[in-house]
Amino acid sequence: MPDALPGWNNTAAKQSIIDFVAAVTDPASDDFVPAADRVAVFDNDGTISTETPYTQLAFALDRAAQLGKPTTPEEVHAGGIGAALALIQLTHGSITTDAFDAVVRDWIATARHPHFGRPYSALVYQPMIELLDLLKANGFACWVFSGGGSDFMRAWAPEVFGIPPHRIIGSTSSVTFELRDDGPRLVKGTDIAVIDDKEQKPVSIHQAVGQRPIFAAGNTDGDLAMLQWTAASPYRNLEIVVHHTDAVREFAYDVDPVLGSGTANVLAAAASGGWTVIDMAADWATVYAPD
Amino acid sequence: MPDALPGWNNTAAKQSIIDFVAAVTDPASDDFVPAADRVAVFDNDGTISTETPYTQLAFALDRAAQLGKPTTPEEVHAGGIGAALALIQLTHGSITTDAFDAVVRDWIATARHPHFGRPYSALVYQPMIELLDLLKANGFACWVFSGGGSDFMRAWAPEVFGIPPHRIIGSTSSVTFELRDDGPRLVKGTDIAVIDDKEQKPVSIHQAVGQRPIFAAGNTDGDLAMLQWTAASPYRNLEIVVHHTDAVREFAYDVDPVLGSGTANVLAAAASGGWTVIDMAADWATVYAPD
Repeated sequence: MPDALPGWNNTAAKQSIIDFVAAVTDPASDDFVPAADRVAVFDNDGTISTETPYTQLAFALDRAAQLGKPTTPEEVHAGGIGAALALIQLTHGSITTDAFDAVVRDWIATARHPHFGRPYSALVYQPMIELLDLLKANGFACWVFSGGGSDFMRAWAPEVFGIPPHRIIGSTSSVTFELRDDGPRLVKGTDIAVIDDKEQKPVSIHQAVGQRPIFAAGNTDGDLAMLQWTAASPYRNLEIVVHHTDAVREFAYDVDPVLGSGTANVLAAAASGGWTVIDMAADWATVYAPD
Repeated sequence: MPDALPGWNNTAAKQSIIDFVAAVTDPASDDFVPAADRVAVFDNDGTISTETPYTQLAFALDRAAQLGKPTTPEEVHAGGIGAALALIQLTHGSITTDAFDAVVRDWIATARHPHFGRPYSALVYQPMIELLDLLKANGFACWVFSGGGSDFMRAWAPEVFGIPPHRIIGSTSSVTFELRDDGPRLVKGTDIAVIDDKEQKPVSIHQAVGQRPIFAAGNTDGDLAMLQWTAASPYRNLEIVVHHTDAVREFAYDVDPVLGSGTANVLAAAASGGWTVIDMAADWATVYAPD
């Protein structure tokens, strides 16, 4: 049988995935899980996609400049939550859902990452794409629950991740239905209605999936509640924490340099719960697919 | 080829469905729609399920009595929105999602409709179940967008409709993640966070599906915005309005007797937009599957 995870080194992390998938798909196993209950949930930034910088922040800064109101990451960082909200209002609100979708598609097709010089949509972790494919091939429904915006991610991530739009859930603004002379439209508000992070993640999973996952992958304390909720499934389950240890091929950090999300709590929970911690430098043979 | 819609009489309503499905699935047709874009949305109460009385109201009244605080439909009706909210708080809130799911499953297995004497889950319109099956067999993803509660419907409708829980979207309360000594749990609040009716329906479709439907079915003015949003799709599309004209086999009414939802606006829009209006008495050979 060909190796379904060629981007992974043959370490314990890879073996934990192979063992889990084999057990829950084997009808003769006590750990067998019916296909309809094989729900897998993934964080996005730092788990599937690089988050240095956040793809959506890079978009917002480019969009602000395009709208004639340029700002810098340093200004946003110094201005705190107020500056971040103002940037989101300017770049994500007061626009129809159709127009926003087109703006993001244009941006993702042309923008390049400042360090790697490649499209942001190419800077997804090849081992995690392989993992998604392995789970899908074994009957799992794979979902994304991210602090990033639903509308932003759905404009580019479905084809990159191989996940349909409805399975990509993130933060949302209010949206308003307007019936005009030229027809109905949906308009994005300038508020933030739902921040899909921390304790909201299992709540969003309940609202959007209506089933409890048996697999979860994240990388920061923002994913802890989602991982805890999954770990308490009555079925055999697997929790994965992506640890950014690779200063050569990617970046090494324990605290996200922009939003300050930490990893202390999730790594402690992983240690006590027997979750799989991925040491990117040691466990991954590849980080990004070749150019 | 066997008739996929045996519960329908051979009238123009049935033909409009057959023509639509044939056109959007024919790769040689100008109306062809790729399978990934074949999204169909259905209202539930009065469109798939009988709404006289509302299944969820019957549950709430039984649950209130079980909790030692009995009330009557007349009291709820006379008390208006305040009485309805109090009933929902009492019967749907301050309970874990797991416990609520079990309570609804127990109720649906034992409760009987006061007029028909059958389980509520049997009182779904056989022609609409056939329509769901026809669409699914032709590559459509079928979704429910209902004013009823997501958690209530998901406890019984998936197997009755043949639709997975995540494709059944309704009104929601807030939900809170709690980490206790015996593990995490999700607790339903006593508020109503989202009422999935009227202009909220296309908004909920955007948030939950992320694609615009090409097929929509409803029965009251509460479904009008969802039908308008679908009718404005750039693809060929079909809108259906179920009109309750059958006083013999079901009930004949134009205004819902409990919540007062009307049909004047949706029937006017159907007439001007060329939508398919189903005259239940004339267009349906069967209403409910045999006992």
